[in-house]
Amino acid sequence: MLSSRLCRRLQRVVQWRSVGCVSTRRVHCSTQLRMASGKLQPAKRATGHGKNLWVEFVALAMETKAINLGQGMPDFGPPQHLIDALCDCSQEAKNNQYTRSQGHVRLVTALANMYSRLMGRQLNPMTDVVVSMGAYSILSHAINAFLEEGDEIILVEPFFDCYQPMAKIAGAKTVFVPLRPQGQYAGHSKDWVLDPGELEAAFSPKTKMIIVNNPNNPLGKLFTTEELTVVAELCKRYDVICLMDEVYEWLTYSGTKHVRMATLPGMWERTITVGSAGKTFSATGWKMGWGIGPEHLVKHMQTMHANTGYCYPTLLQEAVARALEVETARLGQPDCYFTQLAVDTERKRDEIAEVLREVGLEPIIPDSGYFMMADTTPLGIKFDSGNDEPYDFQFTKWMTREKGVATIPPSAFFSPANKHLVEKFVRFCFIKDDATLQAAYAKLREWAKELKSEKKT
Amino acid sequence: MLSSRLCRRLQRVVQWRSVGCVSTRRVHCSTQLRMASGKLQPAKRATGHGKNLWVEFVALAMETKAINLGQGMPDFGPPQHLIDALCDCSQEAKNNQYTRSQGHVRLVTALANMYSRLMGRQLNPMTDVVVSMGAYSILSHAINAFLEEGDEIILVEPFFDCYQPMAKIAGAKTVFVPLRPQGQYAGHSKDWVLDPGELEAAFSPKTKMIIVNNPNNPLGKLFTTEELTVVAELCKRYDVICLMDEVYEWLTYSGTKHVRMATLPGMWERTITVGSAGKTFSATGWKMGWGIGPEHLVKHMQTMHANTGYCYPTLLQEAVARALEVETARLGQPDCYFTQLAVDTERKRDEIAEVLREVGLEPIIPDSGYFMMADTTPLGIKFDSGNDEPYDFQFTKWMTREKGVATIPPSAFFSPANKHLVEKFVRFCFIKDDATLQAAYAKLREWAKELKSEKKT
Repeated sequence: MLSSRLCRRLQRVVQWRSVGCVSTRRVHCSTQLRMASGKLQPAKRATGHGKNLWVEFVALAMETKAINLGQGMPDFGPPQHLIDALCDCSQEAKNNQYTRSQGHVRLVTALANMYSRLMGRQLNPMTDVVVSMGAYSILSHAINAFLEEGDEIILVEPFFDCYQPMAKIAGAKTVFVPLRPQGQYAGHSKDWVLDPGELEAAFSPKTKMIIVNNPNNPLGKLFTTEELTVVAELCKRYDVICLMDEVYEWLTYSGTKHVRMATLPGMWERTITVGSAGKTFSATGWKMGWGIGPEHLVKHMQTMHANTGYCYPTLLQEAVARALEVETARLGQPDCYFTQLAVDTERKRDEIAEVLREVGLEPIIPDSGYFMMADTTPLGIKFDSGNDEPYDFQFTKWMTREKGVATIPPSAFFSPANKHLVEKFVRFCFIKDDATLQAAYAKLREWAKELKSEKKT
Repeated sequence: MLSSRLCRRLQRVVQWRSVGCVSTRRVHCSTQLRMASGKLQPAKRATGHGKNLWVEFVALAMETKAINLGQGMPDFGPPQHLIDALCDCSQEAKNNQYTRSQGHVRLVTALANMYSRLMGRQLNPMTDVVVSMGAYSILSHAINAFLEEGDEIILVEPFFDCYQPMAKIAGAKTVFVPLRPQGQYAGHSKDWVLDPGELEAAFSPKTKMIIVNNPNNPLGKLFTTEELTVVAELCKRYDVICLMDEVYEWLTYSGTKHVRMATLPGMWERTITVGSAGKTFSATGWKMGWGIGPEHLVKHMQTMHANTGYCYPTLLQEAVARALEVETARLGQPDCYFTQLAVDTERKRDEIAEVLREVGLEPIIPDSGYFMMADTTPLGIKFDSGNDEPYDFQFTKWMTREKGVATIPPSAFFSPANKHLVEKFVRFCFIKDDATLQAAYAKLREWAKELKSEKKT
């Protein structure tokens, strides 16, 4: 199929390349410089985003072959019935072709059924739901559908790090309000709270949206009805859209309750709730997310989705629809996957907290989610003062290389002014296979032993 | 898992809803009105997009149960080895979790290998490739990475209708240049050509990008080296990025040659080539697309992708990687899927042209792609003059309802000033199962018979 002329040319290129990498690189660099001065430059929205945290830390974990308790994903697979549904539906031609832009009919129906029960309100699958490439894309669509130059968006810290570049792409100004540790030893996620006065001060006539991550990553905090009500009242007073990132909705532990902002009085009309098949079914690589809300908000997200991607893969939607039908029928029962996953992950939470304490780290016990923050202060480790990276970036990189366990620096989830709140912390992801966790615990215990013998000598 | 209070509330809502739809709708409308006046309004970029052509025509085809030769998708499945690869790789946990943002390593490697051969240039899989949700998202990333308020983008008409809303979202001004019919009877796709003077007049110091769809949808035109050179010289002179939508690259017919813009002298540096797993493997529902180009362009698309979606589903990437490895090894051979699909689709092209002529429609024979435009003028059908929709919209809707065959109005692919060029045409998609095509031919022949008997009487 290749013309002989093309083949000859290819051979020449390959020969030329094999002469040496150095000259190739030199040619490339000069091209780059020439290009940068012309009209091939990027638009403003594509610049100034800096390094992507995940790109950097995923690469480090791969390079060092450390045991990866970094990126928030299970290292086990989703429930077998989801995989079986995928294989089964992939055999049908129609599941391999385009589907409805806003969401595959069977999936939006399954989602509307489930969230109608969860939210105590009859949802319309056609108008109140939008499906796209991960909660990530849903957040992007919500932000781009409503925010533009001159608007302000409030981010509650710690925030999932993508909110900030998304707001920048939309041209909006970000305003930050942190959860602050309360009391002498804030060793539980509920000890981190919003200051109502500080929150109110962040609202202005320009505020168009607030994003609240509930359950919160990486603190694992579940907001109480009282805390959510403070946010809700401000949203209503300032006529603000509330974007609720609730992707960890099923991972809540004994004695806790996940309250949905959309169920608070007068809040349905101004709330977009974001969910994720990746988090729900331990299948982050499926990259499927959904937005649930009133038609007058969701329709603009549907417009953004239709004009930037059109539709999310059909066969994954069909498979998730079938799996949701199964789990919705047994919601709240012991054999429901969501229940089982929460029970299993809670056990892992308690185990890792114990091991971290053995090392001398001070964990913040999360009420939800699959992350644990831990204070490194008691270890008193010092780094080269010439390095201007935040302490937690230095600590996690050092720990990945030297102790063989990869984690994530949580100051990435705070604005510059508030990074100090967690600069001595690291974030552990504990939704891992027991074998992975045991291997990590062994490394951590080895470290604990070293520390003990150092103390003795 | 549901609280009893929530359950009671849900019951009340359901009871209230069941009182009647009318009151529900009324409440909803007044909410809508109130909302529209407040801060819950969309950003400018999310407004004014009008109806989405596909949403409208897919709904019409479904409603009428017409035989669907409308939307551009096969109604058969992809090659079995692709499906088998998917089922196989879905059993492995790691294929169900996040992968590299810019593209799964095995896939970008397979793509770089294939396009290195096709483009006669050694590509770097890490820097020269980006994978996202369909060619659709790749186009969106390219446009958003480079265009902003004040920039101009040239669209060669007919254009894939999503280019225009994408440019609008980016804030750029669209400038149109049509392929115009040449000669008395422009009955072949190569009879539609660009006027070099008209094309040059479209370039200005503000022009930042041009999009050329080659092979072109819906004309099926393949641009010759000479025609592409005219575009290339203008791109170089005006320092413009050339976005080549080449998703139909494998569907080229006997005696033709697909020339890649990126292989023209000096064009690699300023060309982004867009491809699609959906078109390549007859799996439009997989919604996987890729962009190929120099690092200094692709890196900004990678930035947009990383900050709006992060990564495309891992398991679909792994499966397509495996399938591409198989097909790249037998590229150009008779057992290569790309060869087989082209041979089979060319036969269908010749068949449908014959049937359309029987009805009295005058087809434009495409050199490539899977669409056929046909002139309805000889039929002389007139519609209600009170309807201000373009003729082809009226014709296709009438034909779908009355003749039972759904098609697409091609004026949707032209700017208002140039819609007249194709307003009497309809677009048929002929990449359909033989059974579907035979059923459509039967409907069309029935219509031909009616027309003949009308003539006689």
